[in-house]
Amino acid sequence: MEVNLDDISGEWLGYVMDVLFDAGANDVFYTPIYMKKNRPGVLLQLLCRKEAIGQMKDILLKETTTLGIRYYPLTVHRMERDFVQVETKWGSITVKQGISNGEVFQSSPEYEECRKIAEKHKVPLKKVYEEVWKHVGK
Amino acid sequence: MEVNLDDISGEWLGYVMDVLFDAGANDVFYTPIYMKKNRPGVLLQLLCRKEAIGQMKDILLKETTTLGIRYYPLTVHRMERDFVQVETKWGSITVKQGISNGEVFQSSPEYEECRKIAEKHKVPLKKVYEEVWKHVGK
Amino acid sequence: MEVNLDDISGEWLGYVMDVLFDAGANDVFYTPIYMKKNRPGVLLQLLCRKEAIGQMKDILLKETTTLGIRYYPLTVHRMERDFVQVETKWGSITVKQGISNGEVFQSSPEYEECRKIAEKHKVPLKKVYEEVWKHVGK
Amino acid sequence: MEVNLDDISGEWLGYVMDVLFDAGANDVFYTPIYMKKNRPGVLLQLLCRKEAIGQMKDILLKETTTLGIRYYPLTVHRMERDFVQVETKWGSITVKQGISNGEVFQSSPEYEECRKIAEKHKVPLKKVYEEVWKHVGK
Amino acid sequence: MEVNLDDISGEWLGYVMDVLFDAGANDVFYTPIYMKKNRPGVLLQLLCRKEAIGQMKDILLKETTTLGIRYYPLTVHRMERDFVQVETKWGSITVKQGISNGEVFQSSPEYEECRKIAEKHKVPLKKVYEEVWKHVGK
Amino acid sequence: MEVNLDDISGEWLGYVMDVLFDAGANDVFYTPIYMKKNRPGVLLQLLCRKEAIGQMKDILLKETTTLGIRYYPLTVHRMERDFVQVETKWGSITVKQGISNGEVFQSSPEYEECRKIAEKHKVPLKKVYEEVWKHVGK
Repeated sequence: MEVNLDDISGEWLGYVMDVLFDAGANDVFYTPIYMKKNRPGVLLQLLCRKEAIGQMKDILLKETTTLGIRYYPLTVHRMERDFVQVETKWGSITVKQGISNGEVFQSSPEYEECRKIAEKHKVPLKKVYEEVWKHVGK
Repeated sequence: MEVNLDDISGEWLGYVMDVLFDAGANDVFYTPIYMKKNRPGVLLQLLCRKEAIGQMKDILLKETTTLGIRYYPLTVHRMERDFVQVETKWGSITVKQGISNGEVFQSSPEYEECRKIAEKHKVPLKKVYEEVWKHVGK
Repeated sequence: MEVNLDDISGEWLGYVMDVLFDAGANDVFYTPIYMKKNRPGVLLQLLCRKEAIGQMKDILLKETTTLGIRYYPLTVHRMERDFVQVETKWGSITVKQGISNGEVFQSSPEYEECRKIAEKHKVPLKKVYEEVWKHVGK
Repeated sequence: MEVNLDDISGEWLGYVMDVLFDAGANDVFYTPIYMKKNRPGVLLQLLCRKEAIGQMKDILLKETTTLGIRYYPLTVHRMERDFVQVETKWGSITVKQGISNGEVFQSSPEYEECRKIAEKHKVPLKKVYEEVWKHVGK
Repeated sequence: MEVNLDDISGEWLGYVMDVLFDAGANDVFYTPIYMKKNRPGVLLQLLCRKEAIGQMKDILLKETTTLGIRYYPLTVHRMERDFVQVETKWGSITVKQGISNGEVFQSSPEYEECRKIAEKHKVPLKKVYEEVWKHVGK
Repeated sequence: MEVNLDDISGEWLGYVMDVLFDAGANDVFYTPIYMKKNRPGVLLQLLCRKEAIGQMKDILLKETTTLGIRYYPLTVHRMERDFVQVETKWGSITVKQGISNGEVFQSSPEYEECRKIAEKHKVPLKKVYEEVWKHVGK
């Protein structure tokens, strides 16, 4: 689902992203675009299940200044996900694994857990990730 | 309809946008992209009705440096539009309303009218919009 | 203060922005840039008072992957600010005014207050701003 | 001179660019930036002579939503410019030359003249430039 | 085919572009995007024939950090291409022509040949292109 | 050093970046900008030592279409660098360390060495970095 916006402020766009995620969007992201009459604009794109289209449209009408919404179907290849625990000196951290045909391709530490540890123990977030990578190989 | 361009100057792109709008494109916009061999490029995207595809392709061939054009169908939900007049101290200004199921979601002052008033009365464009919003609630 | 980054993930950049603001940066923002070897990179820019330079450098060393930091002095013309209260049907909202030579140039509703009202009363953020604008003229 | 903007619409930004050029700015351009709270913003940059700073500041206060303006001095190496006429089948076109130490480095056809010929004779702008390049070697 | 990435470094992205081209992608390009939690991200887009989808997916899984890949079909209008030789003072240079319905729309000098001549003869690349344009009219 | 460009193709920009690095620039990067008359442009920025300014200007005049070049001085805080060797199953890889006041803040594997190993042993670049990180903790 896509919307071009040239008459909305960044403040509202920051807000509507949160609202769309809260309502169940799979992803929401903005791309800077160049529109007519020298207008810097923003392309809002969102990914959602087919059944959620109505609700998402409703939010876009209410929270943005758009007069039209475009959409088209996408095929999505989503990897299986698994979660493993890694022990660090600051406690256990969850690592999300992306699996395809039984092989682990991705191992990414859960951001929110790392962030909390970084804040609580006053260590750089970078150090927390590095510690996890040492044990799991990312 | 989409075209990737890495061997065209910004001057020509500014021009071709006008030509496409004049020929009836619903929207034309540019996105900055990163192409191979460290080339900053531009993604030209345009929205048009199905019947206009041939003419738009023709313009792109003539006015840009592209060797290929991509396209795919979009479903568009376009709001009903209505126009109301708002009286300000500088005269009447049209406000475009976006309506869905009988409810007014958007109220946006016509840019060109506001611009003309701003220039004629030597007031900031911002002030003109604010004046309209006071009467209509955007 | 400026840093070019081509070997850091977006996750860490989202985090370091918060850390820099918490430490007293006046502003922090990112610009997408094109770096050598086809690398999409990010230019981190931050504005701070002279006395804060040491602390900001320290955070950048710890939380990013940079090997060098650039800076240069800026002259800043900051407007006087004043705060007025506007009464709406959902309660009072603060409006920040930007003043120069005794004249009010800007009137911007406080985002966080508007956001809270939008969430509490389940109205679009847009409606809250519009309500404020009706009373103050932005 | 620089301003960060996260609460202004693209419509106003398109307008203020024209106003600043009309008032004598040497250059005005926008860069898309990422600001706090997920806000897509715009960095407005303008180049002007020292004496014009006051007037430019005045326009930025009136026409944008900024609460502060930054600036810093730049050294500019500007090439000498010369203008030559090139005869084409559609008439004479001016070519601007950039000269340094007596050597011609740049030869760029005047955009507005090329545009007018393209429109009048209904030929692609690209063809007009190509015709000029054949005679001058860009 | 599309992938959103917010946890990968620019270094890896520069590399994966090369890998995808080597594996036969028709085009690969990056767009800077704004993702949740203030993360600057990158949208990787690639164009390939239907039969190559499996191989491309495989590379994306192995070389990036993605957990999901989207794709959708595109109609492509590709111009016929022809190659002509242009004689310059530094030797012969190939010019790629884009042809539609028997008419030549594009004439673009082969970049790699021009680059080699520029390096070998120590002339600016710009001069090489200009020389070609004089003979062919771009 | 900075140059705004709106009449140059991406092909030439990819080339000039290489030329500037070969001539000793410390860094060169491009930012997409919005220029007048709806032109997508590019801001070329380069960092170099004071003594190199003349040579860099010369390249910009010859290889780009600019008619003017701006520059301003920057203070740079550059970390001390040290290099250590890490043993992996594919051989030794250099890791660059960024050091400030005797403390190691950054540890980044040398990209070119990792790339060569990835290509030679047909393993993903990601795996090579992960292997290094396990031994050094980034």
